[in-house]
Amino acid sequence: MPYRAPIDDILFAMNHAAGMKEGIESGVYADIADGFARTLLEEAGKFAEDILDPINRSGDLHGSRLVNGGVQTAPGWKEAYAKWHEGGWAGVVTPQEFGGMGLPHLLNSACFEMWTAANMAFMLCPCLSFGAVDALIAHGSKALQDIWLPRLVSGEWPATMNLTEPQAGSDLAALRSRAERNPDGTYRISGQKIFITYGDHDMSANIVHLVLARLPDAPPGTRGISLFIVPKFLLNADGAPGAANDLRCTGVEHKMGIHGSPTCVMSYGDHGGAIGWLVGEENRGLACMFTMMNAARLAVGLQGVALGERAFQHALAYACERRQGRAAAYNGEGMAPIVYHPDVRRQLMTMKALTQAARAICYLTADATDRSHRLPDAEARKQAGERVALLTPVAKAFSTDIGNEVASIGVQVHGGMGFIEETGAAQFMRDARIAAIYEGTNGIQAIDLVQRKLPLSGGATVRREIQDMRRTLAELDRVNAPEFGKMALRLHEAVDALERATEWMLGKTGSALEDALAGATPYLRLFGLARGGVSLAAMALAARDGESGAAIPTARFFAEQIAVGAGALETTVTEGAEGVGGALAALGAVA
Amino acid sequence: MPYRAPIDDILFAMNHAAGMKEGIESGVYADIADGFARTLLEEAGKFAEDILDPINRSGDLHGSRLVNGGVQTAPGWKEAYAKWHEGGWAGVVTPQEFGGMGLPHLLNSACFEMWTAANMAFMLCPCLSFGAVDALIAHGSKALQDIWLPRLVSGEWPATMNLTEPQAGSDLAALRSRAERNPDGTYRISGQKIFITYGDHDMSANIVHLVLARLPDAPPGTRGISLFIVPKFLLNADGAPGAANDLRCTGVEHKMGIHGSPTCVMSYGDHGGAIGWLVGEENRGLACMFTMMNAARLAVGLQGVALGERAFQHALAYACERRQGRAAAYNGEGMAPIVYHPDVRRQLMTMKALTQAARAICYLTADATDRSHRLPDAEARKQAGERVALLTPVAKAFSTDIGNEVASIGVQVHGGMGFIEETGAAQFMRDARIAAIYEGTNGIQAIDLVQRKLPLSGGATVRREIQDMRRTLAELDRVNAPEFGKMALRLHEAVDALERATEWMLGKTGSALEDALAGATPYLRLFGLARGGVSLAAMALAARDGESGAAIPTARFFAEQIAVGAGALETTVTEGAEGVGGALAALGAVA
Repeated sequence: MPYRAPIDDILFAMNHAAGMKEGIESGVYADIADGFARTLLEEAGKFAEDILDPINRSGDLHGSRLVNGGVQTAPGWKEAYAKWHEGGWAGVVTPQEFGGMGLPHLLNSACFEMWTAANMAFMLCPCLSFGAVDALIAHGSKALQDIWLPRLVSGEWPATMNLTEPQAGSDLAALRSRAERNPDGTYRISGQKIFITYGDHDMSANIVHLVLARLPDAPPGTRGISLFIVPKFLLNADGAPGAANDLRCTGVEHKMGIHGSPTCVMSYGDHGGAIGWLVGEENRGLACMFTMMNAARLAVGLQGVALGERAFQHALAYACERRQGRAAAYNGEGMAPIVYHPDVRRQLMTMKALTQAARAICYLTADATDRSHRLPDAEARKQAGERVALLTPVAKAFSTDIGNEVASIGVQVHGGMGFIEETGAAQFMRDARIAAIYEGTNGIQAIDLVQRKLPLSGGATVRREIQDMRRTLAELDRVNAPEFGKMALRLHEAVDALERATEWMLGKTGSALEDALAGATPYLRLFGLARGGVSLAAMALAARDGESGAAIPTARFFAEQIAVGAGALETTVTEGAEGVGGALAALGAVA
Repeated sequence: MPYRAPIDDILFAMNHAAGMKEGIESGVYADIADGFARTLLEEAGKFAEDILDPINRSGDLHGSRLVNGGVQTAPGWKEAYAKWHEGGWAGVVTPQEFGGMGLPHLLNSACFEMWTAANMAFMLCPCLSFGAVDALIAHGSKALQDIWLPRLVSGEWPATMNLTEPQAGSDLAALRSRAERNPDGTYRISGQKIFITYGDHDMSANIVHLVLARLPDAPPGTRGISLFIVPKFLLNADGAPGAANDLRCTGVEHKMGIHGSPTCVMSYGDHGGAIGWLVGEENRGLACMFTMMNAARLAVGLQGVALGERAFQHALAYACERRQGRAAAYNGEGMAPIVYHPDVRRQLMTMKALTQAARAICYLTADATDRSHRLPDAEARKQAGERVALLTPVAKAFSTDIGNEVASIGVQVHGGMGFIEETGAAQFMRDARIAAIYEGTNGIQAIDLVQRKLPLSGGATVRREIQDMRRTLAELDRVNAPEFGKMALRLHEAVDALERATEWMLGKTGSALEDALAGATPYLRLFGLARGGVSLAAMALAARDGESGAAIPTARFFAEQIAVGAGALETTVTEGAEGVGGALAALGAVA
């Protein structure tokens, strides 16, 4: 079934899980007041429904292929990219001084969710430009900005990120690609890169590669990495693409999913070196890359939300149509639609509740990003920035885990039809699978959360987050309506568990890091359950005023049926180190 | 990496999670004493490693295709099937009077696990004959048995099961295929069947279809279904395949996984009716089919174990080889093998512990099957039979859920390489996905457990199972060695939670079935955690005598890190009805 942009659900989450309503009232979001947010979302939703969704399956079936040295995308994709460019969608958040609309990240995140739900493989292409634009604005020289930003912000030429090499994946210190200085201030880049998303394609006249490489005299490790712009085509004097640069795609991977998105092996400098321009300072490339990666990680989290929403819509429609057996709740003629069977309902509610919790966390992260730029007070901006840092690994890993889980339940709801590719449910599951892996595996996110983010401001950032949750819980206690069931009880338990686990972690990160790392993954999950559950509760409280009737049962289901696992997660965090530590021998594979 | 048959692990589970050691001592398993079990497993393991594993990937890549009206299997598959037939592996459990070896189901289950781990898609073909043989022995006339059993038991001709029709999946009452009586005692079968595994192929000279259909005067619903043998080729007077029967494969599905296994749309009787022979009595086909399905459900559970084991082996090998970053536990040169990172170790231990728990439950079910036939005392045989009935839905659903989870973690351990098809990890995940769906979805299994199995003997069967768990716990309390950590505590909690949830369920199945059904899925998971954890503890206790050093840390990890979730599952079972019940409105799709 076709994707339907869930504008009302999205606006409700923006207003009440994230802070759009408050932000419009306080002026932080003055630029999207008076219904502007809805108007823009409706336009973006139309783009998702009318342009991106119809070519989603053709991308899965045809894939992107390497033909005569160049990558051909699936039928209709080139035309869709032209419409993306025409629509100006690439520049939603870019400041107006650089040619964008300067709108909130929160709004862009909601748009991105819809576009990705309609066609994840397609959206990987424009998505990479968001981070490239951020990096150029933050670190690029005026000259570089003047040349490249207009084409990137307009969406005319998309960007790529070239980090990974065969021996350097999660650990960029092992990177080997080389950059040598030319007398004219440019550089000659050479080396092999793998897993380069949209490393080549036929959708635009040029491609702006951002490439990490080492100078000959660079220090070893991550302090010796520099970032370069290396375009597919060098520019003529008039700025139009001219001679081909010394780079090529030598292979396209066969992947489990996102077939429409070409994952390329790239070879730079086979004929003396690809011409590149330094972004920022020499040997400071990692800082630039982190600028790109933070935004990219939230975007990947939103992919989890998007695929969850898509899979949910698909499964719900099937469950309302497919009839099998009898069900007590069904009084109609013939066999009951399977949505009437309690076990199917449990599956669908699990899909819905998980997806909405992940959406809440991602939107909250986007909202904090906006506040880190827009709040008038410097200290408040700093705190918002630290909140972004804290929530980003949770948004990425929790949401993409959920994307996998929800897409898999979606297959299950379809029964045997779910395993048949024509049904579409299997594609969502295959597509979703990569999101837990790239942009730092979810294990890396958990380590980042525990090792780098919890200690921010000596623990004050995470403690502030927990206090924020407790404010919602206090409101929940005050209201305590019967239809909320045990929501308050279960969420108190979850936040208590999170607080204890957090203090345990803060006590270990200095002295016993291995123990902390052994519990990092369940800790991140616990964080997601508590934060997600409380944000759904905030939506439920707002729904009491009648705005969204489904928010209360959804929040209740999440608290009673999902967040209820928080206590066990706390135990696995605080009691797991010995079991994980003893695993080396038990695995029997290590001397 | 190639599959390695884990003979030692398997024997250890057969001896100490299931009752092989006791059975050999008491005489129940006298026929596999004196090392016979190991000898046979080693032969079966060689077949898995040398014949089935090498053609696994070709099956995934080439798939089975419909060419000129017949299904062509992948290169090498026909030859492998000939070796299967030559080896006599189809008859391991069939009584000697019917041409088999008459060996225990427990032994056959262990063989089947290995064969399936090596090549799940291939093993779906011979696997269907196991149930067909059971059905023919239990319900077929002497004449039918004489004709068909020798070919089925030798593996010369494989069988199929034809149940599903487009409108009749989980609910067979809706079945429409027709059977009309011929004057000579045969029947004319017509109708369309879908999802027929190996409905056609080129690996054998004939195919023995078992088909469910309705007689013209049959009562409606499941009481009007009859079972027929409908061969692909009718037999000449000498018993050799002769004229083609009136049936054909009209399509092969494009599936997410098990590409080597043709999932066929079958059309019977396009030219007047396919000739069929009645198995058992008219209108009693469902009873025959249930004979086939119980064995098939355990086999599907073993598929979950098999894919879990396979994915674990693959991921562990990669984690020992792939190097990234530094790790405190690694003192060697250069980057650390990723198995040294605590979070990777957690993933691998989770894979291992889950897989071994599922194996324990499946082997226990097979062991009970043997005892239901072999025990000298009639009451003991009856109790063993009820134990099979109780454990079968758990073996099927818990193990296949775990197969999915473990195969997905296996992809994750590989990082980006896991998403690339050449690595192999993705195939295990795609292949495993179907096992939670077919032979009754896991939701159906949970309903079966709660609605039909808990009430067996007025609840005595399930209470006996819990008492059996408590005997192991008492032994655990007695030993209580430091290396067991909190194993005893966590397993006591899990069994207590299971017992309370069970009594709650028993109180609801009569009076408030909807409430019970709303909690059926988490109840089954809770059952699996408790039963699996206790069985691993039994293995750990046996390992104290030095037989297997890894059993203790594995059982401990399962208890402390996985079974610890039992309490929350109990809560979701007993407090979930209202949230699930209220879902119809929250889902917003049902009037």
